[in-house]
Amino acid sequence: MSEELTIRRAAAEDLPALVALLADDPLGSSRETPDDPAPYRAAFERITADPQHYLAVAERAGRIVGTLQLTLVPGLSRRGATRAIVEAVRVHADERGAGLGSALMTWAVEESRRLGAELVQLTSDASRTDAHRFYERLGFVPSHIGFKLPLGG
Amino acid sequence: MSEELTIRRAAAEDLPALVALLADDPLGSSRETPDDPAPYRAAFERITADPQHYLAVAERAGRIVGTLQLTLVPGLSRRGATRAIVEAVRVHADERGAGLGSALMTWAVEESRRLGAELVQLTSDASRTDAHRFYERLGFVPSHIGFKLPLGG
Repeated sequence: MSEELTIRRAAAEDLPALVALLADDPLGSSRETPDDPAPYRAAFERITADPQHYLAVAERAGRIVGTLQLTLVPGLSRRGATRAIVEAVRVHADERGAGLGSALMTWAVEESRRLGAELVQLTSDASRTDAHRFYERLGFVPSHIGFKLPLGG
Repeated sequence: MSEELTIRRAAAEDLPALVALLADDPLGSSRETPDDPAPYRAAFERITADPQHYLAVAERAGRIVGTLQLTLVPGLSRRGATRAIVEAVRVHADERGAGLGSALMTWAVEESRRLGAELVQLTSDASRTDAHRFYERLGFVPSHIGFKLPLGG
């Protein structure tokens, strides 16, 4: 852990490492297909085409060890507040408990503030209880219920 | 309720009615300032500048009676799935219980599908228990905890 950590925007050549990171997760393992990169390539292009999306990677010793995605959503409510939505936070298994999650989230919060957001929000699967304690330590308030509707087919 | 309901994209002239709708809400009444339209005008421009945001209004008999905002968020996870995020769902007091909420959410779900989203998600304040039953009736699953961090100042 002595090597310096860099958090930066993802580039196309980070994609294989990013997909591997998404797949190496209790929920992701059944949802991702790292052997079929085409849908990820197309998604990467959709993300980078819109400047309101910030796909970040954390790199240590030349290796991608974490990621998250930030999206800025302007809105009318709360006097026209812009909110930043954090999605797809992942930390490599070797780095868990070593402060990388905090570093990534601190980056996301600072970046959100810099970009003019008045609120940062995220949802976390109800089964990820360790993650919930982590977000609460960072000052996030579990004030909402997150609902999802898969559109299948 | 006999007049026909139209759901369409919001136009600049809908803004005063939209802000009044946001303010006429148990949580919104303390958060909105309908007498100070400038921040709402600026926010409306930010929303309409990005084609990934869909600010909808429901109109009946020439009156704005409901609104919601849909944002498309492409992502890498779930094999590069795009998700649609619903924010700021509001229904005029006169219309509550009359099916307008369902009509708005059905519009949002169909629009999300048409735009290629594989998942629709939203968060609802834990105190809005009636809304939770409503979303569950529409097939939404309360699988997540929604965390918020206000950035104040």
